[in-house]
Amino acid sequence: MIKLGIVGLGRIGKIHLSNLLNFFPQVTVQSVCSGGGDSLSYAKELGVSNLFTDYKAMLSHGKLDAVIIASPTSLHKEHILSTLELGLPIFCEKPIDLEIETVRKLVKKIEEKNVPFTMGFNRRFDPNNQKIKRYITDHIIGNIQTLHITSRDPGAPPLDYIKTSGGLFLDMAIHDFDLARFFVQSEVTHVFSQGTVFGNAKIQELNDIDTATTLLQFENGCFTTIENSRNSTYGYDQRLEAFGSSGRCGYDNIREDSTYLANSEGYHQEKPLHFFIERYQSSYLNIMKAFIKLLETGKQSMVNSNDGLQSLAIGLAAMKSIKENRLVALTEIL
Amino acid sequence: MIKLGIVGLGRIGKIHLSNLLNFFPQVTVQSVCSGGGDSLSYAKELGVSNLFTDYKAMLSHGKLDAVIIASPTSLHKEHILSTLELGLPIFCEKPIDLEIETVRKLVKKIEEKNVPFTMGFNRRFDPNNQKIKRYITDHIIGNIQTLHITSRDPGAPPLDYIKTSGGLFLDMAIHDFDLARFFVQSEVTHVFSQGTVFGNAKIQELNDIDTATTLLQFENGCFTTIENSRNSTYGYDQRLEAFGSSGRCGYDNIREDSTYLANSEGYHQEKPLHFFIERYQSSYLNIMKAFIKLLETGKQSMVNSNDGLQSLAIGLAAMKSIKENRLVALTEIL
Amino acid sequence: MIKLGIVGLGRIGKIHLSNLLNFFPQVTVQSVCSGGGDSLSYAKELGVSNLFTDYKAMLSHGKLDAVIIASPTSLHKEHILSTLELGLPIFCEKPIDLEIETVRKLVKKIEEKNVPFTMGFNRRFDPNNQKIKRYITDHIIGNIQTLHITSRDPGAPPLDYIKTSGGLFLDMAIHDFDLARFFVQSEVTHVFSQGTVFGNAKIQELNDIDTATTLLQFENGCFTTIENSRNSTYGYDQRLEAFGSSGRCGYDNIREDSTYLANSEGYHQEKPLHFFIERYQSSYLNIMKAFIKLLETGKQSMVNSNDGLQSLAIGLAAMKSIKENRLVALTEIL
Amino acid sequence: MIKLGIVGLGRIGKIHLSNLLNFFPQVTVQSVCSGGGDSLSYAKELGVSNLFTDYKAMLSHGKLDAVIIASPTSLHKEHILSTLELGLPIFCEKPIDLEIETVRKLVKKIEEKNVPFTMGFNRRFDPNNQKIKRYITDHIIGNIQTLHITSRDPGAPPLDYIKTSGGLFLDMAIHDFDLARFFVQSEVTHVFSQGTVFGNAKIQELNDIDTATTLLQFENGCFTTIENSRNSTYGYDQRLEAFGSSGRCGYDNIREDSTYLANSEGYHQEKPLHFFIERYQSSYLNIMKAFIKLLETGKQSMVNSNDGLQSLAIGLAAMKSIKENRLVALTEIL
Repeated sequence: MIKLGIVGLGRIGKIHLSNLLNFFPQVTVQSVCSGGGDSLSYAKELGVSNLFTDYKAMLSHGKLDAVIIASPTSLHKEHILSTLELGLPIFCEKPIDLEIETVRKLVKKIEEKNVPFTMGFNRRFDPNNQKIKRYITDHIIGNIQTLHITSRDPGAPPLDYIKTSGGLFLDMAIHDFDLARFFVQSEVTHVFSQGTVFGNAKIQELNDIDTATTLLQFENGCFTTIENSRNSTYGYDQRLEAFGSSGRCGYDNIREDSTYLANSEGYHQEKPLHFFIERYQSSYLNIMKAFIKLLETGKQSMVNSNDGLQSLAIGLAAMKSIKENRLVALTEIL
Repeated sequence: MIKLGIVGLGRIGKIHLSNLLNFFPQVTVQSVCSGGGDSLSYAKELGVSNLFTDYKAMLSHGKLDAVIIASPTSLHKEHILSTLELGLPIFCEKPIDLEIETVRKLVKKIEEKNVPFTMGFNRRFDPNNQKIKRYITDHIIGNIQTLHITSRDPGAPPLDYIKTSGGLFLDMAIHDFDLARFFVQSEVTHVFSQGTVFGNAKIQELNDIDTATTLLQFENGCFTTIENSRNSTYGYDQRLEAFGSSGRCGYDNIREDSTYLANSEGYHQEKPLHFFIERYQSSYLNIMKAFIKLLETGKQSMVNSNDGLQSLAIGLAAMKSIKENRLVALTEIL
Repeated sequence: MIKLGIVGLGRIGKIHLSNLLNFFPQVTVQSVCSGGGDSLSYAKELGVSNLFTDYKAMLSHGKLDAVIIASPTSLHKEHILSTLELGLPIFCEKPIDLEIETVRKLVKKIEEKNVPFTMGFNRRFDPNNQKIKRYITDHIIGNIQTLHITSRDPGAPPLDYIKTSGGLFLDMAIHDFDLARFFVQSEVTHVFSQGTVFGNAKIQELNDIDTATTLLQFENGCFTTIENSRNSTYGYDQRLEAFGSSGRCGYDNIREDSTYLANSEGYHQEKPLHFFIERYQSSYLNIMKAFIKLLETGKQSMVNSNDGLQSLAIGLAAMKSIKENRLVALTEIL
Repeated sequence: MIKLGIVGLGRIGKIHLSNLLNFFPQVTVQSVCSGGGDSLSYAKELGVSNLFTDYKAMLSHGKLDAVIIASPTSLHKEHILSTLELGLPIFCEKPIDLEIETVRKLVKKIEEKNVPFTMGFNRRFDPNNQKIKRYITDHIIGNIQTLHITSRDPGAPPLDYIKTSGGLFLDMAIHDFDLARFFVQSEVTHVFSQGTVFGNAKIQELNDIDTATTLLQFENGCFTTIENSRNSTYGYDQRLEAFGSSGRCGYDNIREDSTYLANSEGYHQEKPLHFFIERYQSSYLNIMKAFIKLLETGKQSMVNSNDGLQSLAIGLAAMKSIKENRLVALTEIL
């Protein structure tokens, strides 16, 4: 049995806990750590025996085989460092941290310690994205030339969340930056981004934006554009198109159901699945499968701490690009 | 130059006239014949010189190379017979006549005279139907096993029209019966049909129906079902699916445009093209191309008088089936 | 805690067992009964303590609150009768039995005993079917006038299965007959069916068919057609269309993923989900939710033993219709 | 009768000639002018009486009501100036000229002369684009926030054409720049573009590109991205999406037909209509309708010489942006 500890039992931590309990007979969630209150009771009800509010206490209580860090971003650094001291494999939710310098140092330490580290970029493990990846790497569309990602949330998060999340680029678009690197299979050299607030003006007061269009330049010359918004009225919008020398591939949104209604006003279908919890249900499960397999086989992680570093740098470059309305080289950030 | 005469300038006659004038530089519409009034003025405005209200007068005025019969069904017999006397090739709108005995005799005479005769089953020449025909004859779907046709009008015709049209089976579904024979490439042996009036009760007073579901048994064993309605609220519904040992093929409706709108209520697209004039615009043109080519090359018509006879017989069998609520053999009609 | 027993641990029994263990914290699977061998070991591994090969032994060992009958059809009668003696609520897989007389008697007994009885017509609980049901009952498409169901399996079952399954109508199309009654909300009066073997000739030797087109007449006048095949080369084909006075509704197949590929040969999308296990995953879960809720609330089952009787009768009428090539009244069967 | 002259009978000139002859009974094509050879014979065959190789000769022969300039871009200036002297309304194909200074002067002169001038940006008159325009101006999608245009040709034009066409931005993407202004209803302030040659290396020798991704900044803040390629293997790709505060709208490609084929390899549909001749057939007709109506009513053109100037400036800015890999203000060009 693989003995896991989980720190952080917010929305994402709970998804991982529930998946681990339901789908991994070879895993025991030995202990969980959380700020306390409801989330610990929740874990207790599901049968977790060891509940902690102090992460170091959790680490020192009985030997763990690996930990899952789903705590607030501001605590990641501390949790990663404590875990590294014990040399335990880490699954860490994105972003590692909001400061590039902090992340760079952590990545260095992780590499020195040679500890298995999986960034929680679960969307790479979405079945549609996996298929697209295959179409690209098997050259089914020839050589990739352009990539266009559309990623729009059905609403802005609570203002309190925005205050500490790092904003649109670091809490939301960072997934799209990672996907772009995943598909283009090259490193970003320059970023040009436009951003503004079209919706709730309070977002502006918090120095964040709710809409952005970003253009990425890659070393291998693939042109990439990403459209982000927090104001989609028609549901969670997650689409992608890759164009290459032999064709194009992509995917449309997954609807709530497959029904249609035709009447005097036209032909109607359902909205997309509501939000990321519904849309990426299998991605969360699949990335955990990959992590557990990693623990079992000792192989390299498919998405590591450097992936976390690169995506953060792209996000910071995008923010700088908007502020200065110019193309920003990634070397200005990294 | 091929010299044509047209008799009948209703809705369909006008389509043929306009197509001949616009798209066939090798054809002259030498004369037209019509009940008179507006339709003759219409032809005059388009530049037709010889206008008649008497068909025999038209036939005896200057030599014609062929005639197009688009007159009311009740006049077809007389117009066909007069034309046959001169041995002129005929393009005739469906149905040939409402009486099976009359049609049988006419078909016999047409065959005896060995006069090129094309039935106006234009839908065979629709690009979608042509593609499906190819999928079937080239065995792209293997051997055809079942066929399902959905054919619904966006509204009932005027009651006056129904009085003389022969009703749903002979004025509307007859196209679907012909398409079924076209695709299945075999002859119908038995018909089972259900029919009723779901819409305007006055249709019932005229002994007609506005809704029917018909099952055809073919010599080669292909199972065929046809759904007809005159009460489609969502536009003209023309769809088809053929299922075979290696796959299925078919087509969906053609929408008014290709736009979509996604909003908080879902995903919306346009209605189908309004009615047969819009939907089968190219079919009317294509069948005329085929007829003109026939005149030029002397080849056999792809849709002849026997096709008119068979489809009429199926329609009459369907009516008998509804009345007696039983399977009817085509031999009971033919 | 609700204490359940399961009899029969074939493909379907295992689905129910697994769903009960994973998604119903308020339920204990107290005991299972099976022919023995692998399936009992499987249940043991999942943590079921009481394993039986004799159904009566299971029933007499500790009190149960309800049983799930997923045994071979030929054993249903015996299992239902033993359970009725104890007055326990029953969830029974379809069909109840292959003999109409047997089923009629069982239904009578179930009604006399007033025992909650749920037929395992899980497709009624499919989210697409639930939505269509709402479109119909809320008159979103006005009054339903025609219904067309397409239901094709990606291959024939093993010949051994066919020997005892009752054949295409009783093991496969019975689901479609039930769905038709579910949507049309009326009783079938007459059946006309065509059927043949287009695929494996050995199916014919077993007196079964692999392809059928069936027409149902309902008391309320709705015209229904059903296309069945066991030879779909393009995956499991489950589609449906209801046409009414204000519009039409339906659903298309659910594809394996949402990707597309456009290249010089056209535009390509994935096949439908492979078979019923994948396609109706949520239906199996939803019907179990409904059954458990029934146990908790004491309400009437949404799909009862009479539903099992009617669907069987339709299937038998379809078989008679094919044999005699005529319309068969349900009164000839029931 | 409106008397028109046409100068230039290449591919586009012939489309206009044929449309005018077939669909405008109120118009006479009084004379045509062309470099000579085949194109004049073509016009003669269609019945045009007055054929010229010298534009001034055409203008002085018999009074015209307006002219259509479809000559090579390098001759536009001369043809426009001669026509302006006579004060005749002009329909001019894009671009007006490749030099911004030349165009600026011509626009000034056109405005001074107050002569009706219609730029041949026919795509504004495409039914899909007209519908999208209505969705935007009627605020069906709320306030427009982002626009994404995908515009890919099924192959590069002949190298000889590229030598004088002005390259990808001035012969092809200029349509997309105009559409962007049409939909966003504001002026472009800055342009950021990436471009390269992914296909035929000879295009590079001619200093042109075959692939570009362009980002436009508008005065009203709408973010716009345009993807262009000359290397689409899957047919002519013309798609568009507008996102606003209440929803999104757009359109997909129009396929060659509406058929599908489902088999063991998936679900297949046809490629898009081959190229602009097929795809924009109705746009060419519609813009001519608008021009003729303009002549009849004396109203303002919906797409004028300033529209030609702005789109050219955007194209030149895009070229400068690629060369200098930076954001370029339109004021640097205009």
